[in-house]
Amino acid sequence: MNSGVTYPRGFKAAGISCGIKKNTKKDLALIHSDSRAIAAGLFTTNKIKSASILINLKHLRKPDAQAILIVSGNANTCTGKRGIRDSHTIVQSVADSLSLKKEEILLASTGRIGIFLPITKIKRAIPNLVTHLSEDSNSAAEAILTTDKRIKETSLATKIFGRSKREVRIGGMAKGAGMIGPNLATMLAFFTTDAVIEPAALREALTLAVRSSFNLITIDNEESTNDSAIILANGEARNRKIKKGSENFSKFSSALNKISLLLAKLIVADGEGAEKVIEVKVKGAWCQKDAVRIAKTVAGSNLVKAAIAGSFPNWGRIMAALGRARARVNLNLLDLSINGILVFSKGEKQNYQEEKLRESLNKKEIKIEINLYLGESRSTAFGCDLTEEYVRINKE
Amino acid sequence: MNSGVTYPRGFKAAGISCGIKKNTKKDLALIHSDSRAIAAGLFTTNKIKSASILINLKHLRKPDAQAILIVSGNANTCTGKRGIRDSHTIVQSVADSLSLKKEEILLASTGRIGIFLPITKIKRAIPNLVTHLSEDSNSAAEAILTTDKRIKETSLATKIFGRSKREVRIGGMAKGAGMIGPNLATMLAFFTTDAVIEPAALREALTLAVRSSFNLITIDNEESTNDSAIILANGEARNRKIKKGSENFSKFSSALNKISLLLAKLIVADGEGAEKVIEVKVKGAWCQKDAVRIAKTVAGSNLVKAAIAGSFPNWGRIMAALGRARARVNLNLLDLSINGILVFSKGEKQNYQEEKLRESLNKKEIKIEINLYLGESRSTAFGCDLTEEYVRINKE
Repeated sequence: MNSGVTYPRGFKAAGISCGIKKNTKKDLALIHSDSRAIAAGLFTTNKIKSASILINLKHLRKPDAQAILIVSGNANTCTGKRGIRDSHTIVQSVADSLSLKKEEILLASTGRIGIFLPITKIKRAIPNLVTHLSEDSNSAAEAILTTDKRIKETSLATKIFGRSKREVRIGGMAKGAGMIGPNLATMLAFFTTDAVIEPAALREALTLAVRSSFNLITIDNEESTNDSAIILANGEARNRKIKKGSENFSKFSSALNKISLLLAKLIVADGEGAEKVIEVKVKGAWCQKDAVRIAKTVAGSNLVKAAIAGSFPNWGRIMAALGRARARVNLNLLDLSINGILVFSKGEKQNYQEEKLRESLNKKEIKIEINLYLGESRSTAFGCDLTEEYVRINKE
Repeated sequence: MNSGVTYPRGFKAAGISCGIKKNTKKDLALIHSDSRAIAAGLFTTNKIKSASILINLKHLRKPDAQAILIVSGNANTCTGKRGIRDSHTIVQSVADSLSLKKEEILLASTGRIGIFLPITKIKRAIPNLVTHLSEDSNSAAEAILTTDKRIKETSLATKIFGRSKREVRIGGMAKGAGMIGPNLATMLAFFTTDAVIEPAALREALTLAVRSSFNLITIDNEESTNDSAIILANGEARNRKIKKGSENFSKFSSALNKISLLLAKLIVADGEGAEKVIEVKVKGAWCQKDAVRIAKTVAGSNLVKAAIAGSFPNWGRIMAALGRARARVNLNLLDLSINGILVFSKGEKQNYQEEKLRESLNKKEIKIEINLYLGESRSTAFGCDLTEEYVRINKE
């Protein structure tokens, strides 16, 4: 039941339909902490930002926040002054219903750009949304979806040391299926935790988690105007306060990384039209930047993705992609393996069995491994194949 | 008949089938100047380069060159030491047949990566190829194609001043339909001219032409391992020698620019699966780099391309693409028009007729105009729509 954002103590969630989407599909979600909480958020680096994000940036000047409202089916981006005004209106409406200050509400939205919010519908639905708050996270995880086919939520507990061991819980949910690109992976991700943690440590842990997960996935190299990752921490675990640089911070951070990576992989697996997940593992890179560039360029290449969709053992496309990643590469040193089959090594094509390679490409998980033999840096990126279905979805 | 590379005086061309491609499709082309000529070449910046390119880089240390052999259907890339050896063998074979030095032959290839050249077939075909040399450029222009649907060739004459006015001719042909990306546009382009021109001026003119044409087109953001643009100049027009910085240089350079741009547009129009050409005109950019980044990011965005394929008036995707181009953008200043219809201006969505916009997207040429109002720089990029057909072609 409470497998996502309601797993940590003191959190409730709700998801209902207010009429933004057709066929009474859920389109409004709320996450709420019973007690005072702090928040951290990371947002798109796209120069065009949703009104929701502009408001969050203002509200997050102070870390106190107790609820997140998520609107699905409308991005509220490129909607000018009216878009900002509309956001303030619905945030005020949530604040009234929950008896909170406006600044304690954060906002996220996803959907089509350039359409005004149906503000009357949303305002009318908010009291109803609040009465639906419960320990069941499922409706909220469903309501945030757009072209996604599957709900994405998970949770984890970790022990934090102090006078006594305390179990700290983290929960998360995400959405994202298209417009998934190089930074923050064009998606929405929400985390809750009952940990007692410094605001700066919370922000740092979120940054690390996003960098090693959502920033390494790609569906179509697009970065959206609405990318958001937000975490609320309400302290109900009553653990010794987690501070930056401490052993407890490492434990908390590593648990949050795990949750983020799992959600990121769920996003890729649910990529628009995707049938296969591609894992690109780069090692031996000259520096971290090079490793990331190569991993993401290969995972994001249309030609590589189309070849994998067709189980076409054309590894030359991987070579072409890694060569254009603006990273240090020496053709005469590197090794390339696909699903454990070494196809190219030290400047020479290897004698592998073409038929065996072709067969292995029918798997649902494709593993590409590149060893550059130039240094110690490594990175793993995740992508998906490119099918006719992706084009079909995005033509409409 | 001689509308392409054989239009300048003293050039002949040939195209035949040697059995690389199936169904006796032409796959071997040759361009030859009757008299001594000089050459310039520009090649891919991909770190993984075809053996053909490695050999050209060596041969172009001296500008003398009199023939270009083009192999179509095999990239001869990632073929290690044997690939280099094979290239030398076929170049030697052309040199023997034409009684030239090996260093006077340039080489280009395109096709699948990681496959060894069928060296016996090619060697056996070369004497036959040489006997086919004629003033008809058509067979050569056909032989260099791969997934292209149409031949791409053109020519132009321009007057060069001296003691007397001389007509200088330029001809060109190109191929490219997939793997068309940010730099040198993953394609092969060959130019011939009968101008008398300094080697340095020839190189400069080629660089300028490529920068303002092939480097501004995109089909799928892929940069290939085999991109090449090569020009031969044999001086048969007997004009006063064209030198860098002169008025005559400007005339020659502008004629070469025209030819390149035309070929570049033919490539985009023939993009794999493409049904529409997208022109993205950016003006008012802070600097040239910003203008180019925005134009190319919008023209290369999968989501923009898919929307245009479906005549879906979702201009928000254009906003999202221009926002992620890592260029200076002020949402409250910029104007966005599609096919002359202003859809967004100064931070606000405009009151355009949705139905009229949707209809205009049925055209075969889509014009996107972005005015940033931040400076004086401008750039125009060309792309094509993304259809299911692109995926189908590249799955196989």
